Amino acid sequence: MSELIARLREGLPGDAVVTDPDILGGYAHDMASFCPAGTPAAAVLPRTTEEVQHVMRTATALRTPVVPQGARTGLSGGANATDGCVLLSLTRMNRVLEISPVDRIAVVEPGVVNADLSRQVAAHGLSYPPDPSSWEECTLGGNIGTASGGLCCVKYGVTAEYVLGLDVVLADGRLLRTGRRTAKGVAGLDLTRLFVGSEGCLGVVVGATLALRAEPPRQLALAAEFPSAKAACEAVCRIMEAGHTPSLLELMDRTTLRAVNALTKMGLPESTEALLLAAFDTPEPSGPLAAVGALCEEAGASAVVPADTPAESELLLQGRRAALVALEAVRGTTMIDDVCVPRSALAALLEGTAAIAERHRLTIGVCAHAGDGNTHPTVCFDARDEDEAHRARASFDEIMELGLRLGGTITGEHGVGVLKREWLARELGPVGLEIQRSVKAAFDPLGILNPGKVF
Amino acid sequence: MSELIARLREGLPGDAVVTDPDILGGYAHDMASFCPAGTPAAAVLPRTTEEVQHVMRTATALRTPVVPQGARTGLSGGANATDGCVLLSLTRMNRVLEISPVDRIAVVEPGVVNADLSRQVAAHGLSYPPDPSSWEECTLGGNIGTASGGLCCVKYGVTAEYVLGLDVVLADGRLLRTGRRTAKGVAGLDLTRLFVGSEGCLGVVVGATLALRAEPPRQLALAAEFPSAKAACEAVCRIMEAGHTPSLLELMDRTTLRAVNALTKMGLPESTEALLLAAFDTPEPSGPLAAVGALCEEAGASAVVPADTPAESELLLQGRRAALVALEAVRGTTMIDDVCVPRSALAALLEGTAAIAERHRLTIGVCAHAGDGNTHPTVCFDARDEDEAHRARASFDEIMELGLRLGGTITGEHGVGVLKREWLARELGPVGLEIQRSVKAAFDPLGILNPGKVF
Repeated sequence: MSELIARLREGLPGDAVVTDPDILGGYAHDMASFCPAGTPAAAVLPRTTEEVQHVMRTATALRTPVVPQGARTGLSGGANATDGCVLLSLTRMNRVLEISPVDRIAVVEPGVVNADLSRQVAAHGLSYPPDPSSWEECTLGGNIGTASGGLCCVKYGVTAEYVLGLDVVLADGRLLRTGRRTAKGVAGLDLTRLFVGSEGCLGVVVGATLALRAEPPRQLALAAEFPSAKAACEAVCRIMEAGHTPSLLELMDRTTLRAVNALTKMGLPESTEALLLAAFDTPEPSGPLAAVGALCEEAGASAVVPADTPAESELLLQGRRAALVALEAVRGTTMIDDVCVPRSALAALLEGTAAIAERHRLTIGVCAHAGDGNTHPTVCFDARDEDEAHRARASFDEIMELGLRLGGTITGEHGVGVLKREWLARELGPVGLEIQRSVKAAFDPLGILNPGKVF
Repeated sequence: MSELIARLREGLPGDAVVTDPDILGGYAHDMASFCPAGTPAAAVLPRTTEEVQHVMRTATALRTPVVPQGARTGLSGGANATDGCVLLSLTRMNRVLEISPVDRIAVVEPGVVNADLSRQVAAHGLSYPPDPSSWEECTLGGNIGTASGGLCCVKYGVTAEYVLGLDVVLADGRLLRTGRRTAKGVAGLDLTRLFVGSEGCLGVVVGATLALRAEPPRQLALAAEFPSAKAACEAVCRIMEAGHTPSLLELMDRTTLRAVNALTKMGLPESTEALLLAAFDTPEPSGPLAAVGALCEEAGASAVVPADTPAESELLLQGRRAALVALEAVRGTTMIDDVCVPRSALAALLEGTAAIAERHRLTIGVCAHAGDGNTHPTVCFDARDEDEAHRARASFDEIMELGLRLGGTITGEHGVGVLKREWLARELGPVGLEIQRSVKAAFDPLGILNPGKVF
């Protein structure tokens, strides 16, 4: 038994240290399975803050890399193992410690599953808006680490807006409390928001105080069919320019619609080039929904299909929710891009992506949180075909390049991880990258926290 | 002429360097006039980013402290001069560079006055929500530096939620661009939000990309009179617990009501112990307003007065807007506290504050952004009376101590500055303070940016 394992066991229960290589393999990577993953020395599954502190103290003493993990549903390899690392899984710290309807906050441990919190707060008439696609599996700690988005962002914003305070175990094992449980607060630097989206590079989140909202009415949706992606993007711009605040504004292109039909037999309209889904969750949604339908028609929609009930609306959304799985079935493997552009540049991004797909003879389906300009061009390829995999990677990169050229970002909500590390420097520039590294070093001078990720 | 002045003049127009002591004095402090202010070496008023870079390069070369300033409407001495410093006023960089209704963003220079931006975006049917009381004078750069709040926060949040990207001149003169002009983005650490509320200690903001919202309908308000502050706070809790999202939820205590009447002759009800103002800016505000009125009555309101029109609502709010000026007239000077507590602790804070006032034989008026639990206990005193001034300072501190004991923060929206520097350590604890200082050092290793503030 190595010194590392022996020392880890000194402060952890027997079942909290995993070294069996067969079991370890399952912990070694997230959902971006094509990103490289190293061979971990161990996985640890602490149940308390003190146990996490013990892990970090041990790692600091032995200069061992530590990779914090939630449910490993990430899409950029941010939770992948590095050689010889300790995988620090927070999934057993999964208690909801408090829900306060008056203060509209929840206090949680990092391993609570997003959907579990949503259901628990719903029982109090409250909602926790951030809703990444993996919400039935992903943990709140993981959501905080990656600053997760979701379908709701166009109205309700992203995870950063809902994190009021954090308990963080630092690289050397000290416990840092940031933020507050009040609605507002500006005492000192806003370290809370600095941790959101830091992908496990600054510290290990062991507790969070989250802001909640009053639960809105169930949303009512419409679907609009367009003869071109450009026309659908034009509708998105008109809707936002007219001052509407939909609770959801999603786009699926023809490739995605066909893939969803192939998987689910839902009968989505395959002859249409782009389908737009819009919803409102206001007390009287039919008014704005009709106005949005009219704007879609002005922008060239060939058909506008409003739902009559929330249940019908949910049916319309099921296709969208199935999109990524459906696209994966097309060629066996996908690379999911996450480029976000100003919504005025959405049409240019979609047209450019279609040209990239054609040039590389690839199938690239696009679904998008269109209201935010956040697209997921999804490159479908056969990983066993070396040439196709090579073209897939080239097209994936070209889409990011296009996004940057259009004033966008390489990642709207999935994070940098391993996948986009080389691209971060291009987005940030040399001054930005240098300052980011200085900040990282202020928290983690030995560089043991998730090394090789992000920077 | 000193070397500092000579070198500053090398890269700045003649009228951009102020050294006349009489004029300099006017730049030496913000609105917290009882905080100590040193004697500056010069004030500079650059018009371009390059000029700001020249100032910072000069300051780095000569190890000269630099104090960034906006309109100096701050309430904690954060913009006060330190001895021998350069006061760096950004007020001449006051252009709105872009307003995009489709992307719902504005690109601004830091010296733009908050109300000027609000008016310009209103012409496009848009709003920039953060509305500090000084909105007709304060600059957006100052709002960003202090993470300003306002009356709107209970529904629309604080400045941090509206800053998408920043251009920042670093201590050594390098230009850093953070963030983005897209609705979402998670590429690297969120330095944008780290700068918001950093009180000029990390860099000099020379440009900002701000998120806008669709302009809501004009709000409709009601006023409710309560026989005790406790009952008014109980109403606040019931309103929030019932799931309402008012656009404004403000409280004034009897001392404040009397002060406002004395100043404005508005005829607010002086026999009442606390007045609550609630408003909604939804398309149909009368429904939720009636529900809130009923909740106020259940909590013990002696009278509920709904406005019939937005104009009437504005009249109701005028008293609230006059509160701080009115309280200043009571004894000539005020110390405005800014304690924010979980709203469930609002009643305890108000009762505790009344006890502190009594113990110190002082007049302390409380107005509060009650929906956020953010109170402004305002200690009225005669600065010429040494004993009274001493008691004022003691009571001011005791209110912060009470706020911390109730799970709150020493500052909800005004910042730490000079005024609350000693208190920051108590709120953050030793680990928090140490980490904050490390982060500060990563940006400003020589410690020339606003030294002696915050930390």
